[in-house]
Amino acid sequence: MDRARSHTGTNDRVALAFELFNASVQHWLDLAGIFVFALSGALLGVRKNLDVFGMAVLAEATALGGGLFRDVVIGAVPPAAFADLGYFLTPLVATLLVFFLHPEVERINKAVNFFDAAGLGLFCVVGTTKAYEYGLGLTASGALGLATAAGGGVLRDILAGDPPQLLRWDRDLYAVPAIVGAGAVALLIHAGELTGVTAGGAAALAFVLRLAAMRYHWRAPRAWQRRSTAVGEG
Amino acid sequence: MDRARSHTGTNDRVALAFELFNASVQHWLDLAGIFVFALSGALLGVRKNLDVFGMAVLAEATALGGGLFRDVVIGAVPPAAFADLGYFLTPLVATLLVFFLHPEVERINKAVNFFDAAGLGLFCVVGTTKAYEYGLGLTASGALGLATAAGGGVLRDILAGDPPQLLRWDRDLYAVPAIVGAGAVALLIHAGELTGVTAGGAAALAFVLRLAAMRYHWRAPRAWQRRSTAVGEG
Amino acid sequence: MDRARSHTGTNDRVALAFELFNASVQHWLDLAGIFVFALSGALLGVRKNLDVFGMAVLAEATALGGGLFRDVVIGAVPPAAFADLGYFLTPLVATLLVFFLHPEVERINKAVNFFDAAGLGLFCVVGTTKAYEYGLGLTASGALGLATAAGGGVLRDILAGDPPQLLRWDRDLYAVPAIVGAGAVALLIHAGELTGVTAGGAAALAFVLRLAAMRYHWRAPRAWQRRSTAVGEG
Repeated sequence: MDRARSHTGTNDRVALAFELFNASVQHWLDLAGIFVFALSGALLGVRKNLDVFGMAVLAEATALGGGLFRDVVIGAVPPAAFADLGYFLTPLVATLLVFFLHPEVERINKAVNFFDAAGLGLFCVVGTTKAYEYGLGLTASGALGLATAAGGGVLRDILAGDPPQLLRWDRDLYAVPAIVGAGAVALLIHAGELTGVTAGGAAALAFVLRLAAMRYHWRAPRAWQRRSTAVGEG
Repeated sequence: MDRARSHTGTNDRVALAFELFNASVQHWLDLAGIFVFALSGALLGVRKNLDVFGMAVLAEATALGGGLFRDVVIGAVPPAAFADLGYFLTPLVATLLVFFLHPEVERINKAVNFFDAAGLGLFCVVGTTKAYEYGLGLTASGALGLATAAGGGVLRDILAGDPPQLLRWDRDLYAVPAIVGAGAVALLIHAGELTGVTAGGAAALAFVLRLAAMRYHWRAPRAWQRRSTAVGEG
Repeated sequence: MDRARSHTGTNDRVALAFELFNASVQHWLDLAGIFVFALSGALLGVRKNLDVFGMAVLAEATALGGGLFRDVVIGAVPPAAFADLGYFLTPLVATLLVFFLHPEVERINKAVNFFDAAGLGLFCVVGTTKAYEYGLGLTASGALGLATAAGGGVLRDILAGDPPQLLRWDRDLYAVPAIVGAGAVALLIHAGELTGVTAGGAAALAFVLRLAAMRYHWRAPRAWQRRSTAVGEG
């Protein structure tokens, strides 16, 4: 806490941005992001045939895992996930919703993906800003922004026994939009231009990129000369 | 440390309970809980055909993983797992025992389950109390009590490459007894009635519930209308 | 930081060793260890058919995961992995190299194993020393030295969906050389004989043991009377 505040004192432009961005609007955006991430966790729980408690664990891990990792790394303890009751309860609400209405939730899978993209954009911006607040460098802050946005999904997949979707080449780009958003925030901080408006623009950029990646099935390249390993491994 | 102490100063009733509960009896109970959790880790190592070092890693992770997670989250560093030599050495003793005598240990599997239930009850109470000591809210403290009790088993299963038993619907209730025990402690703190005796009662409640869940094969419900997903996924 | 410094003040012999060992040579050794660990992560990414971002995630996790775990446990936040830009960028360089040249890198797999053994020796010594610096006991410091050296590989395998190689009985000894190296450092600290030279000796000892384990296919024993479980499980 003291550490965060003293940093805030010395970095007025970040403090300003953080303030603008952290108002009650920010809190509701956070909860919305947590909610849609939790939906994806609870839905995976249904597909994996878990009981309601397993669904709740997946929902909590998906929604809060990325921010928890960031907070532990930057020394913001207790992490926001355990300091704000709403952060903890929102995934439970999402779990109940999926528990009773999951065919309907599956049917609006497109809507879930839409909000998941919004959460991705939001969390990469929030994560980068918070890490910088706590004194990390710009590159490290961007890396933690990516971890905030994508870490929960990785934890979800590991707990469910799936290979993390983030790592699979046959999925539409997920990391790149978050990297672009986090990188944009880092550049804005560097240029002294981070405000609520520009931060929102960075989040929107990541959001639109993710929507485009899903729409046009953008993929990332795999290592060159893949055939050679087929021989090497055979 | 300072943080913990100042909290203790302002929460005399918790301090009292913690003191009562944290005497040498508490230490021996802790070691007993660690020992039985470690047995379950080492036994899984045998079933997974791991060597003696793999068994020791699983034993340590099972016994100490939950408390380690709690301590990192609440900022109690170095965690108890690394601050108390007995906590670290106990899983190694359990590993040696299983290494030389595992058919006998398997045969007393019922006894291991019995002590595992005792460990579950104990750890959910200790975890909730310690998290509250470090300034977390009652709900967050209860969640960390559950994480203390069940986290080690989740880590054990992930390291061994199994889907976490905690999440599987076809296993007898494990999370619910810990949730009840942790919730009871949170209510006792809220009512100002947490003493060594009532804390012991909460641990006993979780213990008995877990024994009953195993005896009567209590299961948790899965999401409603499961059939619909069979169609949806097909 | 303050905590570390005050410990340094009271443990002059460690401070001396740490200083000797932490010069610019140390930094380059660290980067070399990170680089070869990252190569092994990126190569596994190629074998698992991941795209370039998945490769980078595996490379970062393999190279930095062990030290990250150690730093979070001892309270050294932000961890070195996020405080030193070189630590973060080196795995990305390794990823690019593997991305474009992986058949060549595979061909020099023996060289990678050689450097991986060097990284193992180096990291178990650095990890043990740093944990002691932060006030942990000798046994706990040794355990964290082992975690520093082997933790990244465990994280790599879990992310990739493989059972951790560290735990498998059919792989050449990996933990034992690190345990010997970390134990040697702990004994040297206890005897007041830890200097840059003796620390280098401990690293060399672990390095040579790992090379010998690969050369002669040393394995660790599994639990006695394995047959009995075959019956018990059947």
